[in-house]
Amino acid sequence: MKKIINAPENVVNEMLSGLVKANPEKLDIIADKRIILRKEKKEAGKVAVITGSGSGHEPDQVFYVGKGMMDAACAGPVFAAPTADAIYEAAKAVDTGAGVLFMVKNYTGDRGQFGMAQEMCEMDDIQVKVVIADDDVAVKDSTFTAGRRGVAGAILGYKIVCAAAEKGASLDELVALFDKVNANVRSMGFGLTSCTTPAKGAPTFEIGDDEMEVGVGLHGEPGRERTKLQTADQIMTYITNQCLEDLPFKAGDEVAVMVNGLGGTPLMELYIAYNVVANILAERGIKVYKNYVNEYCTSIDMAGCSVSLLKVDDEMKELLAYPVDIPYSIF
Amino acid sequence: MKKIINAPENVVNEMLSGLVKANPEKLDIIADKRIILRKEKKEAGKVAVITGSGSGHEPDQVFYVGKGMMDAACAGPVFAAPTADAIYEAAKAVDTGAGVLFMVKNYTGDRGQFGMAQEMCEMDDIQVKVVIADDDVAVKDSTFTAGRRGVAGAILGYKIVCAAAEKGASLDELVALFDKVNANVRSMGFGLTSCTTPAKGAPTFEIGDDEMEVGVGLHGEPGRERTKLQTADQIMTYITNQCLEDLPFKAGDEVAVMVNGLGGTPLMELYIAYNVVANILAERGIKVYKNYVNEYCTSIDMAGCSVSLLKVDDEMKELLAYPVDIPYSIF
Repeated sequence: MKKIINAPENVVNEMLSGLVKANPEKLDIIADKRIILRKEKKEAGKVAVITGSGSGHEPDQVFYVGKGMMDAACAGPVFAAPTADAIYEAAKAVDTGAGVLFMVKNYTGDRGQFGMAQEMCEMDDIQVKVVIADDDVAVKDSTFTAGRRGVAGAILGYKIVCAAAEKGASLDELVALFDKVNANVRSMGFGLTSCTTPAKGAPTFEIGDDEMEVGVGLHGEPGRERTKLQTADQIMTYITNQCLEDLPFKAGDEVAVMVNGLGGTPLMELYIAYNVVANILAERGIKVYKNYVNEYCTSIDMAGCSVSLLKVDDEMKELLAYPVDIPYSIF
Repeated sequence: MKKIINAPENVVNEMLSGLVKANPEKLDIIADKRIILRKEKKEAGKVAVITGSGSGHEPDQVFYVGKGMMDAACAGPVFAAPTADAIYEAAKAVDTGAGVLFMVKNYTGDRGQFGMAQEMCEMDDIQVKVVIADDDVAVKDSTFTAGRRGVAGAILGYKIVCAAAEKGASLDELVALFDKVNANVRSMGFGLTSCTTPAKGAPTFEIGDDEMEVGVGLHGEPGRERTKLQTADQIMTYITNQCLEDLPFKAGDEVAVMVNGLGGTPLMELYIAYNVVANILAERGIKVYKNYVNEYCTSIDMAGCSVSLLKVDDEMKELLAYPVDIPYSIF
């Protein structure tokens, strides 16, 4: 295993420690619960937004804590959900009395822990709603889910809903807004290589030098099919069309486009991929409002990418443009 | 070779095409010369700043074109310098009469082409100065350089100088400013894996499963030594100390810190690495003004990272904080 780590069992704690040291004026940590939260004084009346999942998907989730985005995020062990107890502690720490929204991708483990945390909060009279992202069109059910999986398209929902929370929307309004976004976003990806978890120290799955996993899951779980390697034109056309036909998107629609690297794929290839997607959308008469080409939700060090398409309306466009101040940044 | 590409010979052109399609309101392209430039009207009196190098180091260089950063960038083939002819065309396109600054990392191929382009410009009465970054402490001379190599620390110089250009500094002032930054920045990195160029389709160098290349160059060229795999604590301490002792940095100094991923290393590991660097600096009484933990100058898909330390003064701090609007961004 070739990783910049000390002991495999410490990777999450050391990452969180580095994250907080890199942002001493903006972030706090509850280290024993692996909770990252904003340092700034909480605004009374603002609904608090919390997310969380297993680690290994960075920047998702802890690198999205900050003004305009999450109030807190809970990091589980690599590829394992954070505990209900930690989520409950996070909710208590950030609630202002206006309620708490849990934003969760559709994985059985995460749903279970967030659901239990919701019950714990309600016993404390903290009002909690849970929204579930299930944007992945690749498979109907999967190893870790009943129903579709939540993948990178969820981040567009997080961005939009967190902006609305910052602007003062109520808990019920945020739930309705997220559901609207989730109903209008579709994603699909593929893996060229397996990820390698620090604990196992070897690839999660075997894949031939001439093979790719189409519709791969965020933890290396099987997708729709194993195929021979395809060109960028072939694979990006296929996954983009799967998204387009599922909603379906149609001529005249306006979309936000995300091309999300899975951790091991260079920026050059993500833009080669975007070039294909942009051509397809132009041919179909679909207008791009804004594009996001970078890493947003990864599978540790997997090579590959996903495409997400969100049909936007005026409300979503305004909220996508709302400024954020998060630790995942450039300059 | 597992890459999201069509034909290896088209990767740069397709990447540039994707880049411009993703930024239709901000970027222009001179496609046959592989030049990316700002779309906005050039401000009379502003010194134009141009950089360039072989491709494969993305986001460096073409993803740094935009307000607050470069006026243009020239992309060569993967790991091969752009031609003097292309650089000359870029200079003609962006010069406002106030002169042009070429910002170049110290590689023989790049220096040769930028030097020739400077001569071509001078025959046209375009005033050009060339500055050279050589921040890498790993080796004295190398496969591709006389003297030290320029690596990720150069990006901090680009950021500072481009901000000063935006604020109206003269060509001579920019040269002096860059030289000040270059004299105060030190970098060193290591590779866990080789990069794979699209043209070769196989790793550039052989390296054992239990080995790392300490001081590796940006093109996979040899570094200072081949060692057994080290922990994050060990290797980050070593390369950070090499930087610290070279200037040397001392207690009371204030620094900008960059932990730069080489293309295949996940954000989690970069923050584990930053955690070590932050501890070392705190122990030594060196204050961190600002940190940059992400990919800034890569070696295609190499796993590994570099650390750069810049001793900042008030002028540099103000210019590092100057806003940029570049295609390499998050939201």
